[in-house]
Amino acid sequence: MDFLKEYSENIDRELRSLAIPESPSNLYDPLRYFFTMGGKRIRPILTLLAAEKFGSKNHEAMPAALAIEIFHNFSLIHDDIMDEAPVRRGKETVHKKWDTNIAILSGDVLLIKAYQQLNTYPENILKELHTVFNKTAIEVCEGQQMDMDFENISTISRSNYLEMIKLKTSVLLGCALKIGAIIAGANQTEQQQLYDYGINMGIAFQIQDDLLDLYGDPSLVGKQVGGDIIANKNTLLMILAKEDANSDQLNRINELTKELNSEAKIQGVLTLFEQLNVNDKCAKLMNSYYDSAQGHLNNIESKSNKSALWRLTNALQHRAY
Amino acid sequence: MDFLKEYSENIDRELRSLAIPESPSNLYDPLRYFFTMGGKRIRPILTLLAAEKFGSKNHEAMPAALAIEIFHNFSLIHDDIMDEAPVRRGKETVHKKWDTNIAILSGDVLLIKAYQQLNTYPENILKELHTVFNKTAIEVCEGQQMDMDFENISTISRSNYLEMIKLKTSVLLGCALKIGAIIAGANQTEQQQLYDYGINMGIAFQIQDDLLDLYGDPSLVGKQVGGDIIANKNTLLMILAKEDANSDQLNRINELTKELNSEAKIQGVLTLFEQLNVNDKCAKLMNSYYDSAQGHLNNIESKSNKSALWRLTNALQHRAY
Repeated sequence: MDFLKEYSENIDRELRSLAIPESPSNLYDPLRYFFTMGGKRIRPILTLLAAEKFGSKNHEAMPAALAIEIFHNFSLIHDDIMDEAPVRRGKETVHKKWDTNIAILSGDVLLIKAYQQLNTYPENILKELHTVFNKTAIEVCEGQQMDMDFENISTISRSNYLEMIKLKTSVLLGCALKIGAIIAGANQTEQQQLYDYGINMGIAFQIQDDLLDLYGDPSLVGKQVGGDIIANKNTLLMILAKEDANSDQLNRINELTKELNSEAKIQGVLTLFEQLNVNDKCAKLMNSYYDSAQGHLNNIESKSNKSALWRLTNALQHRAY
Repeated sequence: MDFLKEYSENIDRELRSLAIPESPSNLYDPLRYFFTMGGKRIRPILTLLAAEKFGSKNHEAMPAALAIEIFHNFSLIHDDIMDEAPVRRGKETVHKKWDTNIAILSGDVLLIKAYQQLNTYPENILKELHTVFNKTAIEVCEGQQMDMDFENISTISRSNYLEMIKLKTSVLLGCALKIGAIIAGANQTEQQQLYDYGINMGIAFQIQDDLLDLYGDPSLVGKQVGGDIIANKNTLLMILAKEDANSDQLNRINELTKELNSEAKIQGVLTLFEQLNVNDKCAKLMNSYYDSAQGHLNNIESKSNKSALWRLTNALQHRAY
């Protein structure tokens, strides 16, 4: 996605130039640290692209793009505590580098800083911006809670899983786009089409993550292939497998969750997935969401005049990692 | 403060009637639990009284009062994790009754819910409300971080201590009042006088807490007398004692921090405090802040027409617990 490099560099620069006080250093050093960690910056780029699509200049949507990215960083810092994750993007997580208390409080202050960015807009759109942002922020918390709850449940239904990834991930993409559209003065229908585009793309993207964990290009994925299987994670692949498995296959799945040899575990699950044609079913489901996403975009774009969002979606759909 | 009973009952009722979803229950049960814990509801009462003072009806300032109280509850839930507090208001804290992850996430959602209350106001005051609320929320985080940092420092200066309690406690009182004044259409000078009144009252109130821990009526304080001494807490009493102590007295203070017999420890510190006249100095400082608070109130009230805020301040100043 080289055509978006300038956008992500702009966002990085803006994040680094935010006025973060020096003191108390235990509160603010983690913010500076996190802002330099990098990342794809997909969410704030969506805000900028949505606003541009409706005639707005980059500069105008930047504070909202930062609000979205800062909110995302808040949720990552708190999620990393909850998931006991030691590493993010190749660097120590905040609660590991400092401690849990500092990570809680730095996350809190980030959430408030996101609201400060949002509060820079004119009064006539402030309520609208806050309404969608608040609703989304709460949904993201609900999604994270569902994800934690699912860790203690062996069988999750497909619809519950899709609802969880929608809340945990997709609504923030929808919100990022809608906020950009509001700032650029798009009408309600256009806002809603962009929001729905984001929801569908987000779900597709998450399903793809589950697929790439197992079937991605090992040299590009950048993490252990089959990591989800080793961790007994409820992925969509596993959920679809359990949907179609006969009792022998279900027993085999249960056995494999206790298998200590990682290679044997991954191979065993892969064999079952092949028998049940799970890879194909999962890819079909993913593509149906990507198609829905493009459909919502089609509703507000002419065939001859495709926005950068169209190109971004294609690039995401065909990523190998 | 029986004359405020109706206010706190109204606030309790409003909190209980907030639309809190049933699911995910691990996210929302802690909110319901915390809302029924009670408390003095001083902060939201300040919002209501400030608004009334400038001609507003109770009803109009209630969402802002709830925003303040919900924010306060967010900070209590997160602070209790950081302080490893097992009990609040005689009941188990959220992270003890559930777990730390649930307490982090419930706190997060409360912070967002505070913003939802704030977003119910007309567009022409939304930016002003968010500006003071955001600034205050960040200051409260800074105060909490300073308080945590102070645990690892043996000698705190008086000015650093006063800055910490200002940020951790007073700014939220100032904000509660200012928000009420904004909603009621008070002018900038009136808003500022009320804010400064809140800042001074908050500092006085916190100094009083330090005093009451040791010199309060044991039958009313509701916690162990001298608890701060047993925990080697940096209170204003201790800071003033260290300011005036000679080297023998400083050595004695250091010895006493290691004393394991609680009775002997408290008696030893009490004797030193008497020698150094610390109680008196601390009470004088407290009263100077209460006087400043009343001074700011005087600037916007005639002698013959005192608001309920005046009565509230008097009641607080003369509390024995």
